[in-house]
Amino acid sequence: MRDRIRVPAPDLLARARLLVAPTVDATVVRELERITGRPVEQGSSRTAPDEPFIQVGASLPDALRHGPLVWFHSVNAGTDALLAAGPWPSGALLTRTVGRMGERIAQYVLAWVLADCQSVAEFAAQHSRAEWRRIPSELAAGRTVVIYGTGRIGSAVAGLLRGCGIRTVGVGRAARTAPVTGFDRVVGAGQDTEALGSARWVVSTLPFTPDTAGFFGAERFTALGGATFINVGRGATVDMGALEAALHAGAVGRAVLDVLPQEPAAPGDRCWQLPRTVITSHSAGITADEDIVADFAACWEAVAAGRVPDTAVDVGRGY
Amino acid sequence: MRDRIRVPAPDLLARARLLVAPTVDATVVRELERITGRPVEQGSSRTAPDEPFIQVGASLPDALRHGPLVWFHSVNAGTDALLAAGPWPSGALLTRTVGRMGERIAQYVLAWVLADCQSVAEFAAQHSRAEWRRIPSELAAGRTVVIYGTGRIGSAVAGLLRGCGIRTVGVGRAARTAPVTGFDRVVGAGQDTEALGSARWVVSTLPFTPDTAGFFGAERFTALGGATFINVGRGATVDMGALEAALHAGAVGRAVLDVLPQEPAAPGDRCWQLPRTVITSHSAGITADEDIVADFAACWEAVAAGRVPDTAVDVGRGY
Repeated sequence: MRDRIRVPAPDLLARARLLVAPTVDATVVRELERITGRPVEQGSSRTAPDEPFIQVGASLPDALRHGPLVWFHSVNAGTDALLAAGPWPSGALLTRTVGRMGERIAQYVLAWVLADCQSVAEFAAQHSRAEWRRIPSELAAGRTVVIYGTGRIGSAVAGLLRGCGIRTVGVGRAARTAPVTGFDRVVGAGQDTEALGSARWVVSTLPFTPDTAGFFGAERFTALGGATFINVGRGATVDMGALEAALHAGAVGRAVLDVLPQEPAAPGDRCWQLPRTVITSHSAGITADEDIVADFAACWEAVAAGRVPDTAVDVGRGY
Repeated sequence: MRDRIRVPAPDLLARARLLVAPTVDATVVRELERITGRPVEQGSSRTAPDEPFIQVGASLPDALRHGPLVWFHSVNAGTDALLAAGPWPSGALLTRTVGRMGERIAQYVLAWVLADCQSVAEFAAQHSRAEWRRIPSELAAGRTVVIYGTGRIGSAVAGLLRGCGIRTVGVGRAARTAPVTGFDRVVGAGQDTEALGSARWVVSTLPFTPDTAGFFGAERFTALGGATFINVGRGATVDMGALEAALHAGAVGRAVLDVLPQEPAAPGDRCWQLPRTVITSHSAGITADEDIVADFAACWEAVAAGRVPDTAVDVGRGY
């Protein structure tokens, strides 16, 4: 699939101007100038330059969509909002900041997995009542996690959980016979029902694409036997009504939702009333400034060498 | 040191009666009968048998201390209370149930380490207020943990934390140049001050012995620069007044105490009022019945072969 991605020609890269969104921090700007050897033009863009340009930012302003955009580097990992905002400028390379996203999200998932096993919330509540009561812990070893998405984030999550002896089943677009880093086995999205029944945790790292809208609906949720559902992918992959019903029925034991179909959730949103649920305000994979610099530098090096960067997005596929 | 431990002679083992405390579960009793090939005598012991006997339980009743005890197998890992209750019967072997204690305690420690990094308690509180607010996570990687005790539990904790990229410094009785499983380096108990200053977490797995009473006092706590103190060892190794002062001063950022000098803590105990502290009611390493059976079986096999079991306690040293 990645052979569909084209990188800018060397002469284009050499003369492209470098535009950076005003929200990007000054320390990042200085690093971008150092990496590219040219001055950064930072500010709100009302009109696109006439000359070829590279843009670094979180979103692509409408004005810039119609100019000679050579390359857009996103300071975030998710690019769905960017692609949904309008047709992607023909021929423009799109790269993103993955940073230590895999590591960050993996530690988030493990934190909530172990919080379950070790009754972190229950102990905090007991403490506030000055109550001494032993609660046996649950050993994570030998339990099964089903992880949707077997890309770099899914693999990072699987690898870290496996360190606690957890069996890791991945769900990819298709079953895989070759080993996938971090996973004990990988099944296809059509063969996941059996795995769901034995899962202690179900983790989604799925991006939002036309294929994944409402992916987690009644069918998948009712197949669970009390598992904890952890969503670090995208909120719109979940049918919230189906999740609510499954939580009430007990098929879903607990939910930890970093993402929601509508963000931010208003104080009156129904999501706050879901039983046994914690919402973590899209915090699992916040990128740090050093991530932006490191990933842009790696992209620059690849593009300069005529290679497709590792973090390039296939805009037709959406990730 | 372990060569000071003597195991019962084969003929003694062959004819010893098997006494089991009334608190031990029936499923364990059946397994003990299977392993030893003799009937279990279960019940409260008011008088010791005249014949050599093996006892399995949590404590050694006074009556039994004075009989021909050949071997006591503790269903727990800690044997300090057992040894403090009176002089140990001369020549009697003492073994303990370690079980998957290392694994359990390591997962407990990692759960609380990551709960810190991922603001688990803060998100739960925000959720209860229906508040959407992003909280950046702290990447555990590159941070330092100082772990007191480099035995099997300390090593298990270190090994698991290292999987999250945490640097692991062990504190043993003496510095070690040979690698110790799980640790990046091991320093001696007299050289720990420097390591404490750079620690993000300080974990104690120390047993209670005359050498470790009040081991964590003002000197060590004031050397910390805001670290979280996690105690999974023994409560009496901590000077609680010094801990309280260090929490108020900020040298100790948070405390997670599984153990206390007096357990259980009464509702009016001062410990419940310590700032930024969670007490977890001695729950980190609760042994499961299968642990008792597995560890007794391993001891039985060793003793029958004339070897010192791995979980034998040097009663002179206390662990």
